[in-house]
Amino acid sequence: MLAELITIGDEILIGQIIDSNSAWMATELNKIGIKVKQITSVSDDAEHIIEALKNAEDRADIILVTGGLGPTKDDITKKTMAQYFKSKSFVLHEPTLKVVNDIFKRYNAPLLEVNKQQALVPDNCEVLLNDQGTAPSMLFRKDKKIFISMPGVPYEMMNLMTSKVIPFIKKEFNLPAVYHRTILTAGVGESFLAEKLADIEDSLPNYIKLAYLPKLGSVRLRLSTKEHATDEIKNEVQAYISKIIDLIPEYWVAKEDIPIEKAILNLMEANKLTLSVAESCTGGFISQLITQHPGCSSVFTGGGIVYSYELKTKLLGVKKETLEKFGAVSEETITEMVLGALTNFNSDYAIAVSGIAGPDGGMPDKPVGTVWIGVGNREKTVVKKFNFGNKRLQNIERSSIAALNLLFRLLKEFNAES
Amino acid sequence: MLAELITIGDEILIGQIIDSNSAWMATELNKIGIKVKQITSVSDDAEHIIEALKNAEDRADIILVTGGLGPTKDDITKKTMAQYFKSKSFVLHEPTLKVVNDIFKRYNAPLLEVNKQQALVPDNCEVLLNDQGTAPSMLFRKDKKIFISMPGVPYEMMNLMTSKVIPFIKKEFNLPAVYHRTILTAGVGESFLAEKLADIEDSLPNYIKLAYLPKLGSVRLRLSTKEHATDEIKNEVQAYISKIIDLIPEYWVAKEDIPIEKAILNLMEANKLTLSVAESCTGGFISQLITQHPGCSSVFTGGGIVYSYELKTKLLGVKKETLEKFGAVSEETITEMVLGALTNFNSDYAIAVSGIAGPDGGMPDKPVGTVWIGVGNREKTVVKKFNFGNKRLQNIERSSIAALNLLFRLLKEFNAES
Repeated sequence: MLAELITIGDEILIGQIIDSNSAWMATELNKIGIKVKQITSVSDDAEHIIEALKNAEDRADIILVTGGLGPTKDDITKKTMAQYFKSKSFVLHEPTLKVVNDIFKRYNAPLLEVNKQQALVPDNCEVLLNDQGTAPSMLFRKDKKIFISMPGVPYEMMNLMTSKVIPFIKKEFNLPAVYHRTILTAGVGESFLAEKLADIEDSLPNYIKLAYLPKLGSVRLRLSTKEHATDEIKNEVQAYISKIIDLIPEYWVAKEDIPIEKAILNLMEANKLTLSVAESCTGGFISQLITQHPGCSSVFTGGGIVYSYELKTKLLGVKKETLEKFGAVSEETITEMVLGALTNFNSDYAIAVSGIAGPDGGMPDKPVGTVWIGVGNREKTVVKKFNFGNKRLQNIERSSIAALNLLFRLLKEFNAES
Repeated sequence: MLAELITIGDEILIGQIIDSNSAWMATELNKIGIKVKQITSVSDDAEHIIEALKNAEDRADIILVTGGLGPTKDDITKKTMAQYFKSKSFVLHEPTLKVVNDIFKRYNAPLLEVNKQQALVPDNCEVLLNDQGTAPSMLFRKDKKIFISMPGVPYEMMNLMTSKVIPFIKKEFNLPAVYHRTILTAGVGESFLAEKLADIEDSLPNYIKLAYLPKLGSVRLRLSTKEHATDEIKNEVQAYISKIIDLIPEYWVAKEDIPIEKAILNLMEANKLTLSVAESCTGGFISQLITQHPGCSSVFTGGGIVYSYELKTKLLGVKKETLEKFGAVSEETITEMVLGALTNFNSDYAIAVSGIAGPDGGMPDKPVGTVWIGVGNREKTVVKKFNFGNKRLQNIERSSIAALNLLFRLLKEFNAES
């Protein structure tokens, strides 16, 4: 069972947008055992879109198309799909019109004729209702091949994929129920893990596969069955999960496919613990990772973005002498930041980060990329120096993951002791 | 002059890697007036690679290939290119061997036979020396078409593009200088803008194109020339830029291709103004947008992530009675948050956001998505209620952009007055 992804829109071809949709879609398709043969990005040009559809049809069983469904003139996907599938007319799709109306009402925006036209669809498609946006998702069938067009807006596409497209494909093609289990690790590289797990990997039966999925400072380990997973096979996968975890006690974070900050929130919520942050060089990145998650407020009290010396002193009580003598990026300052956050933000645990994110601001003894990270509770503070290189964004992201990993280790230590 | 990009490697097709290389390459090609016709990602499979090369050759003049040049068995790009271009043999490229030797020496790693083989290239290619890695970049010519293969490692590819590929293409094809101008707008939808600008769009000569590029709460408008931009045509584009701006005085933010927070940083830096934030429901998202930008510390002092009532009171001085009587998501609270940030974080301007990001926490009179945003300086505070629907992440992102837009309007008002 092969799929192809076609993204439509000049934005990608002029480099203004990075096509992150396709990677997400490929991951979701992979989970249900569908391989992506090709990903193609084409311009808002009817002839070119048709050529891409034709080529994809020759190679794959399922063709997923995103983009080009907006209300403006340059969005021609709907018209072009109608042409390719020889639709006779456009018909009004009432449920979509209702969504369009509701959206404009909610935003108090005037509903224009072009917006209403979003609810028109080719007569020979099935509509997968997009309840999050104005562009409907359209499904066409042709010679046993399935074509599904979705808007390119990521959250609309993701919602459609999860709630409509993936369930449809599973049902339509009667796919085997593939079973996945994921272990999240942090603070260790892929090749190190591969060496640690070499024996286990060699011992895996041919119907269970282990994949290493690295991302920033963390690596996910995913065990998947290749065929239909019976209860027996599921138990076997579970047993491998336990074996793997035993081999990497200091690196595994979670036995499910969640990001590290969510693993922390779960652990802290279960233990009724609170967390605050004192972010300098990460500038709010850690906070926004945490606050992405619904319900985080039962754990996360907040914190300070302490970019200036003044706020480090005012919000965290870092001593002026410490800043003057050792600088903002130092063991002494980070230690005071952790303690200041615990006290002033009144939380059980605190994270503090201070570093030189770059590209400028480096010094001979503290080159760009130098980052001090501290975590602590009322009994113990752990501080550590890192260097994540001279790329600003990479630095911010890696520092954030490293800080969360340090916090997770401390939590584990105290959780194990208590 | 058309180009196509082909990325080779299973990592992209299984969703493990987001193809950010292609967006970067497309941007660079666009700058020199080369349009990217298609971006194609294919697997490490010779037949599939050859099909992609053939199809690209039919459509484009320049085909840039990345990936699949590593030393391991699954890297088959070099072999496959040799097959496609009917090379007779592989020859040793001495300068590449020197780079390989130097790299292994630097890392004190043993030089294996497979590593030495990296310096072998098809006899009928021109080598563009990759001085940052072991895989050489290879240039093939076929029927007036140019094919260039580069490694997929981003910094190696970027270095090759900048130092070798782009200069080669400019010289080889004697390119016209295409001209782009971008206007950033915020707080208004694509369709509303399209209606506002319909007359201008209709009046554009056929050698100037207007594109709408929406992203979250902002839309970029881009005017591009299709052919060589003479000074006269550039002036014409400039004139259209002015006309467009005159039509949307309350929505345009910048006359260059930068995000809204960067436009704010530029404006504030030029006026020596400082900014702090008080983020509740956006949870650090605004701060991390701002702190992505190098040099932001001359404007941004920091702020508070005030998730809990306690921190709203403690860090911002919001009165307990205000919180009890009106709630955290209210005009009264947001007003006190703005004033508290201005005073306690000692900045010229402040942003405050408090809302119900969802998915839970809604109340009959304050449904999920209700967000109060306030911006202010010592003379004036503006607060406004929004509702961005019930998707948590969308809510956070849209609230952030709306807050930045409100701040930008206030800055403009005071800048215009002063």
